[in-house]
Amino acid sequence: MRRTVFFVSDGTAITAETFGHSLLTQFGEVDFRQIRLPFVDTREKVRDAVALINRAAEADANEPLVFSTIVNSEIGQELVECDGHVFDMFATFMEPLEEVLGVKRSPQVGQAHGMGNSHTYEDRMEATNYALAHDDGISKKLDDADVILIGVSRCGKTPTCLYMALHYGIKAANYPLTEEDLEQPRLPAFLRQHRGKLFGLTIDPERLSQIRENRRPGSRYASLKQCRYETEAAEALMRSEKVPNLSTTDSSVEELASRILLELGLQRELF
Amino acid sequence: MRRTVFFVSDGTAITAETFGHSLLTQFGEVDFRQIRLPFVDTREKVRDAVALINRAAEADANEPLVFSTIVNSEIGQELVECDGHVFDMFATFMEPLEEVLGVKRSPQVGQAHGMGNSHTYEDRMEATNYALAHDDGISKKLDDADVILIGVSRCGKTPTCLYMALHYGIKAANYPLTEEDLEQPRLPAFLRQHRGKLFGLTIDPERLSQIRENRRPGSRYASLKQCRYETEAAEALMRSEKVPNLSTTDSSVEELASRILLELGLQRELF
Repeated sequence: MRRTVFFVSDGTAITAETFGHSLLTQFGEVDFRQIRLPFVDTREKVRDAVALINRAAEADANEPLVFSTIVNSEIGQELVECDGHVFDMFATFMEPLEEVLGVKRSPQVGQAHGMGNSHTYEDRMEATNYALAHDDGISKKLDDADVILIGVSRCGKTPTCLYMALHYGIKAANYPLTEEDLEQPRLPAFLRQHRGKLFGLTIDPERLSQIRENRRPGSRYASLKQCRYETEAAEALMRSEKVPNLSTTDSSVEELASRILLELGLQRELF
Repeated sequence: MRRTVFFVSDGTAITAETFGHSLLTQFGEVDFRQIRLPFVDTREKVRDAVALINRAAEADANEPLVFSTIVNSEIGQELVECDGHVFDMFATFMEPLEEVLGVKRSPQVGQAHGMGNSHTYEDRMEATNYALAHDDGISKKLDDADVILIGVSRCGKTPTCLYMALHYGIKAANYPLTEEDLEQPRLPAFLRQHRGKLFGLTIDPERLSQIRENRRPGSRYASLKQCRYETEAAEALMRSEKVPNLSTTDSSVEELASRILLELGLQRELF
């Protein structure tokens, strides 16, 4: 069963797509063909969008789904005329929200996606630069870190740090536990002094071996035996040092980031 | 006027927060205090959440707003009992969606947030590694790149590349146009051979000077004169080489990423 889905917005369409995905994943048996239509912010562009949707309606046997977060109500109005089933996410909640708040909205396209605040923008950039400068144990000066991720090589530290930096403005450093570290009964002193910021990432040895195999095929580094040794030693070290930890095996980067913030008590706004 | 807002989910709450933000930014005059409650996935946790919301309702003079994307309907049901005004984003659209599709949903918590697909996960990781290995002109071997961003130092290339990698699995390289490059009438040959993948980032010289000043205070590099020279030369070069470009001055990283994908015709799913 195939169904065409459009994510339409006068901004990036990220909100429409994020939310639309979360609904669609509940229908695993349907084969969704997904099309993003961002920056639909003029009469002309909305007519093009409608034409595209109508063409899909004709080609498919099924009515297309249209998730819209168009802020401009005139443009939103034109979209509703299309041959798809429009879920207007903005309009649906805007009226009840105005009622609860007792004020009318002051429409600002683009603002809808959290832009224009240069202060938070700079926080993100600074945090991203921090993550890059403190990736993979490059720097052992970790006083400014909000979070320090530890774990064996290739367990997922770097993307998790970058995600926290880009989305929450969190200064996230990471340090790879080397074989030498794993032979010690304690964590290195430069890490132990920041105990409250430490968070461990663990990983299934089979999965780790697979990932490392892609990087260095046939190496001792990628062997299942070595991966098993390292992951077990790392987990033992985290246990004995009481470092909270999570497995990256079945978690997405955003889930890891979100759980780490929660566990370390960091309340930062999502950008 | 102050108002407490809760983003509640049995997953990361990223969807609730992203969408909630986009609605709240339409009410600039209200002072929203925002609290994220992710992973509310048990009876006990939803009771804690309700208690927290009820306490806010008592402390504020106003009814709190609650944006919920709880997938589990039993838990969602308990949340509705709280003293806040609940916008149940999942339930609101789920029924009409089931009707249009003509099938019932098969509830999958977590799936709602696009996890569990290890193929796309690996694409993201690979793209992130690619972005790191091809950041800042580190490598001139760009055959595998999907996009190559060019622009003067500190104009925003790195975070934009990382965002495209983490969210769309796009292999994004970037190259900083140096003074030497800017003195030439053409782009370097290793870039010109990939013309179709090139995208330029520009920036307001005042803004650039500010950013560079934070990095190297009082330097020639940060001076307004130097920034003006570089940005003008870079823009002239992009014009003469017909490289599409965008200004980063007033755009968020997600807006840049989204527009670049659109302009280069890259249809990738947002993760």
